[in-house]
Amino acid sequence: MLRECFTEDQQQFRDAYRRFLEQEVVPHREEWRKAGIVPRDIFLKMGEQGYLLTWASEELGGLDLEDFRYQQIMIEEDGRYGEVGLFHTLHSRLVAPYLKHFGNAEQQQRFIPKCVSGECILAIAMTEPDAGSDLAGMKSRAEDKGDHWVLNGSKVYISNGILANAVIVAAKSNPEKPREMTLFIVEEGMEGFERGRNLDKLGLKAQDTAELFFNDVKIPKANVLGEVGRGMHHLMQGLAEERLITACISLAAAQCAFDLTKEFVEDRKAFGKALSEQQNTRFKMANMRTEIDVAQAFIDQCVAQHNQGKLTATSASQAKLYCSELEGRMVDEGVQLHGGAGYMQEYEICNLYANARISRILAGTSEIMKEIIARSIFEKR
Amino acid sequence: MLRECFTEDQQQFRDAYRRFLEQEVVPHREEWRKAGIVPRDIFLKMGEQGYLLTWASEELGGLDLEDFRYQQIMIEEDGRYGEVGLFHTLHSRLVAPYLKHFGNAEQQQRFIPKCVSGECILAIAMTEPDAGSDLAGMKSRAEDKGDHWVLNGSKVYISNGILANAVIVAAKSNPEKPREMTLFIVEEGMEGFERGRNLDKLGLKAQDTAELFFNDVKIPKANVLGEVGRGMHHLMQGLAEERLITACISLAAAQCAFDLTKEFVEDRKAFGKALSEQQNTRFKMANMRTEIDVAQAFIDQCVAQHNQGKLTATSASQAKLYCSELEGRMVDEGVQLHGGAGYMQEYEICNLYANARISRILAGTSEIMKEIIARSIFEKR
Amino acid sequence: MLRECFTEDQQQFRDAYRRFLEQEVVPHREEWRKAGIVPRDIFLKMGEQGYLLTWASEELGGLDLEDFRYQQIMIEEDGRYGEVGLFHTLHSRLVAPYLKHFGNAEQQQRFIPKCVSGECILAIAMTEPDAGSDLAGMKSRAEDKGDHWVLNGSKVYISNGILANAVIVAAKSNPEKPREMTLFIVEEGMEGFERGRNLDKLGLKAQDTAELFFNDVKIPKANVLGEVGRGMHHLMQGLAEERLITACISLAAAQCAFDLTKEFVEDRKAFGKALSEQQNTRFKMANMRTEIDVAQAFIDQCVAQHNQGKLTATSASQAKLYCSELEGRMVDEGVQLHGGAGYMQEYEICNLYANARISRILAGTSEIMKEIIARSIFEKR
Amino acid sequence: MLRECFTEDQQQFRDAYRRFLEQEVVPHREEWRKAGIVPRDIFLKMGEQGYLLTWASEELGGLDLEDFRYQQIMIEEDGRYGEVGLFHTLHSRLVAPYLKHFGNAEQQQRFIPKCVSGECILAIAMTEPDAGSDLAGMKSRAEDKGDHWVLNGSKVYISNGILANAVIVAAKSNPEKPREMTLFIVEEGMEGFERGRNLDKLGLKAQDTAELFFNDVKIPKANVLGEVGRGMHHLMQGLAEERLITACISLAAAQCAFDLTKEFVEDRKAFGKALSEQQNTRFKMANMRTEIDVAQAFIDQCVAQHNQGKLTATSASQAKLYCSELEGRMVDEGVQLHGGAGYMQEYEICNLYANARISRILAGTSEIMKEIIARSIFEKR
Repeated sequence: MLRECFTEDQQQFRDAYRRFLEQEVVPHREEWRKAGIVPRDIFLKMGEQGYLLTWASEELGGLDLEDFRYQQIMIEEDGRYGEVGLFHTLHSRLVAPYLKHFGNAEQQQRFIPKCVSGECILAIAMTEPDAGSDLAGMKSRAEDKGDHWVLNGSKVYISNGILANAVIVAAKSNPEKPREMTLFIVEEGMEGFERGRNLDKLGLKAQDTAELFFNDVKIPKANVLGEVGRGMHHLMQGLAEERLITACISLAAAQCAFDLTKEFVEDRKAFGKALSEQQNTRFKMANMRTEIDVAQAFIDQCVAQHNQGKLTATSASQAKLYCSELEGRMVDEGVQLHGGAGYMQEYEICNLYANARISRILAGTSEIMKEIIARSIFEKR
Repeated sequence: MLRECFTEDQQQFRDAYRRFLEQEVVPHREEWRKAGIVPRDIFLKMGEQGYLLTWASEELGGLDLEDFRYQQIMIEEDGRYGEVGLFHTLHSRLVAPYLKHFGNAEQQQRFIPKCVSGECILAIAMTEPDAGSDLAGMKSRAEDKGDHWVLNGSKVYISNGILANAVIVAAKSNPEKPREMTLFIVEEGMEGFERGRNLDKLGLKAQDTAELFFNDVKIPKANVLGEVGRGMHHLMQGLAEERLITACISLAAAQCAFDLTKEFVEDRKAFGKALSEQQNTRFKMANMRTEIDVAQAFIDQCVAQHNQGKLTATSASQAKLYCSELEGRMVDEGVQLHGGAGYMQEYEICNLYANARISRILAGTSEIMKEIIARSIFEKR
Repeated sequence: MLRECFTEDQQQFRDAYRRFLEQEVVPHREEWRKAGIVPRDIFLKMGEQGYLLTWASEELGGLDLEDFRYQQIMIEEDGRYGEVGLFHTLHSRLVAPYLKHFGNAEQQQRFIPKCVSGECILAIAMTEPDAGSDLAGMKSRAEDKGDHWVLNGSKVYISNGILANAVIVAAKSNPEKPREMTLFIVEEGMEGFERGRNLDKLGLKAQDTAELFFNDVKIPKANVLGEVGRGMHHLMQGLAEERLITACISLAAAQCAFDLTKEFVEDRKAFGKALSEQQNTRFKMANMRTEIDVAQAFIDQCVAQHNQGKLTATSASQAKLYCSELEGRMVDEGVQLHGGAGYMQEYEICNLYANARISRILAGTSEIMKEIIARSIFEKR
Repeated sequence: MLRECFTEDQQQFRDAYRRFLEQEVVPHREEWRKAGIVPRDIFLKMGEQGYLLTWASEELGGLDLEDFRYQQIMIEEDGRYGEVGLFHTLHSRLVAPYLKHFGNAEQQQRFIPKCVSGECILAIAMTEPDAGSDLAGMKSRAEDKGDHWVLNGSKVYISNGILANAVIVAAKSNPEKPREMTLFIVEEGMEGFERGRNLDKLGLKAQDTAELFFNDVKIPKANVLGEVGRGMHHLMQGLAEERLITACISLAAAQCAFDLTKEFVEDRKAFGKALSEQQNTRFKMANMRTEIDVAQAFIDQCVAQHNQGKLTATSASQAKLYCSELEGRMVDEGVQLHGGAGYMQEYEICNLYANARISRILAGTSEIMKEIIARSIFEKR
């Protein structure tokens, strides 16, 4: 499918970024996967090239690239090499925007330049053991002690949790209003803030994921992010972009699965002819190509609308739902067409398959997306 | 999903056309379905309003609306009322363009104005018994007798076959080159041209479909359409638009299935609450909404590319494949959510279900679409 | 798959019944479908051969064939010829058993011999407009007038509703206990009992389906079936067998779809070879064969358990759910492999497709089956 | 679903075996998975209890349990604890039977008692790099040197390849008849026989898998298994049982996925109620339960037929195809219902998901199964 949505500048940005990945990321990905984490170093290298928080204003050290297509391009290029670039999308686009939208000037000055340079790595901590996507079931609590707050609780499945220098933590903040929560910036070295082990996951091997523990962590008032009691509301505001991002990641992975599989079935012979000459292979690849192209048109339209400030929560949820389900089908088909090789980690399709399984779960499960979309259908009346 | 692809003029065209349908088509659809055919009269009424061959130039009597979006709008509006508008899309956009592209000036003068007015109804006859989509297996034959041709053979599943005043017929035309075929304009009243009965189909009840027989039909040379021996080639040229049209029809039907079902599940109560309050219903409707919106983005992109002359055969085939499969899923879901009512012809969803089943077959089956798409994947190397 | 579940006697019964169908049913099915109803005559012919209420005791005129496999065989044979045998399964096995289980001696003497002979045709009336499968939402009401009852209300989607001489009608019977209902035998000719038109359905064309109206119908106490106020309970008891029967019907239709499609793809050529030589066709047929064989093993096991009185409500619901969904997939695949022919009513696959769509709805929708099964999973604790 | 297919003795065997697993396997599975291999020790422990080659005759040290249900029971019990028991099924039932069927008396005496005791671990080496399931594409070659053979080649994806003391290797054995192959027993310590590294797989973490290399390995004639040149034929004979075994493994895993998920959704709360109270969860679990029960009926029927020597290659292929596809759907659903937890290796469903992906590939892909089944449909004529 002809795509005409990128400018000349953006195409050049893509080329440069791809070269960067090929030099700085691809040669290390096996090692990072084995380690279960990327080195801090790669944040610094990306920062040096301007690839972190590209949206940040120039006075805060950024490139002032508000246009979401730059992020889309980075995600598409990352997708060509598996999950290994996830760490920076989290940092730059899923967490740092909270600083932009809800941080005061002092906080922005204090954190954003170091986030741009890669010195300060970010994470966000919402999910708790036993609560899943149900934020209202949260047990973490912060108590207002006059000139500071005291935070208690624990969080689980926190991406970048091991590496993060600063973590945005959501906690209930008013014992009399159990639905009120507030966001706090917890920094490395604060007493009582501890990290559990790096969790063993099915995939996303190069992405660290941790449990975090907060035992009487004393948090200065200067580290309250946004308004006290409005934490839930603040979190909601980032969701449309977050879902669009996860949709883009899924679609990029699906595209990568297609490319790897195409190459494989053209090369591999069975029963005297290339797999790509078998009708079954051809039909399955035609389906994959079609499903991906259709989804791409939708995502490109969502990106255009997002750039105009018109992307609705419903459309973003549809993008996330659709692309994560699509990714699941595509990697499954890709593995099948690889045969035994598809089960071996030395083949990249195997990693794509393992990575893909979280997409229908993280950042709101498919079931939650459906709830949101259903609400927009029926409650409009 | 926000759609911003239509101009103000087009919106007005849509409103006017909808009013026309509500006055001239909807009140009669039951009757037309029972009759298995629409009256010639509706062609004349549409012609009077300029709704036939909208693309035709003003000197030939048309509105000169080359922009495909006018057709898309008509298809979308037709879709709100089931299949009853199919007859004119066939006439205006699937058959008449052959006159435009391959007809000589005399032929255009002779036929197009009457097609625009609805006096001359068109059909095209390609498929033969036992040959399906495989045009090379065609048995109809025309013999060059010097000042005329003589045509023999039969065709099957010809839409508008009963009503048509002129039929474009493909036949093999060179006994020494069995792959060569030529297009002929066979007119009502030519000796040896006969029509079989109107076929009983699962759905598309208001659309007549017939077998046609040609026994030594004498065809004047003036009725050869396009170049002798290039019939196959001529037919190929219309395919991208034809597939885009069928994709639009499928998507409009899917949208209609969604709308009818939404209304039904909001109204109908079971076990003390509206169906629309059940999680299963909500999730299924959310899926429908998402699938339709995603496909719509793709189709709107295809239409834009088609208007710029950039729509590839592959993209058109993807549109046809994807939307016809989508339609199948949507009407099936719609019937299920209607329960027993969905099986009764007095409920429109029942007709949509019956209509939908041909979409994955007509104008190239899903299997043929996959073959075409696969070719574009693998043969590029 | 090797099936070893039938006795020698049963095999002979099958052969005889098949011959009967080929002589008495198959030659008329087109005519019956056009008429939308079977003639009363075919009931009498079946009765003469002992094919109605085969389970009835000899003193009541039956063959005393309690073994469910005789019914299974009849259903499988009927399935070879489409839906045209549905009328008698309804009569013999979905309605008449209520007389056996809940009728008193007088009622059995009065009705069963005539049901066996085909003189008295049965229907059962549960569903109401706006209530669907939710029996508690029923509005029909019967009032105890001392020596008789007076019935008011209406019922919809009643199979055999046009033909029936006696209809078992469920109605609420105690204004103070709105959940209590009672079963009544309403007979042809009772004043105030009227039938609406034969409904137009998507399929099951030879099976009449009607709305029934009851306006102050005076019902003698002798026509109360079972215990007053226990109607719901009585209806429940028949459900396991009812679901097993619908499962058998679905599976027989799926098998028929397979057979017709196999024959078609072996005969039809496209692009120079039989469809059955195309990998896509082969894989789809292999899938169909597998899905059917797997389901057959389950059904045969259910039948064996039913004969031993061990079939649980859950297993019966699973059978109904699974086989009706299977039928849907099989007829859809069958139509697709038929191409354009599959959309024409002259091809039997087209009728199978139309018939199949009700299977996931009637006698408890798939959604209701899932509720029942889920209850057995979670409420056991 | 009521299962009545096991004897009292078999139930006791099941209980004993389950206790054995709980004591000797379950406590070590994490450790084995980390190691990527089981210790030789567990073979000896199983041997001591008679759990290896249960089918072996008493004079060869076995329990003489020919009845396949004993194997089925072991597979079902293994399934309760993930893939960790795979090693012995391979040894006992996928490889050792070749010794039974094609070994001469001397070979049986030499190997079988040690296989029964667990001293000699078996593997079979068919697949080669670049050849996949296409045995005819094999490149390994053996040359007859008069009193011995010389073997050259390499094999890939060999389960138990690291542990095996004896490997049955297929190689081409007649340069003039390129389709002829012979089976050889290659023993640990033979010069020129080397093993590659233990391969990193997506799942089956406790099961070692290796590449094997044969460089001028000198093989005594006493180690030729079966007839020279009949290797392919010998391999074919084991396939029906092999496919039935893999079907049983898949079904056991599906059942385990159901059990784990049931427990999880009953315990986990979201939005104020247990997941098991949500309609979506309930419907999905109802579907899982139904799909598994249906497949179980088919497998139990296959096992009964296999015990009678009546299981056809087609039925075995259907069992493998169906159950492996089923397993894939079930573990996917299971992970989804676990939410984020399902992606963590500390939850057993995560391992089941990873294990399941090979089932549609190993021992003949789904595509090959379909080819086999299709052949039985169309070639019978």
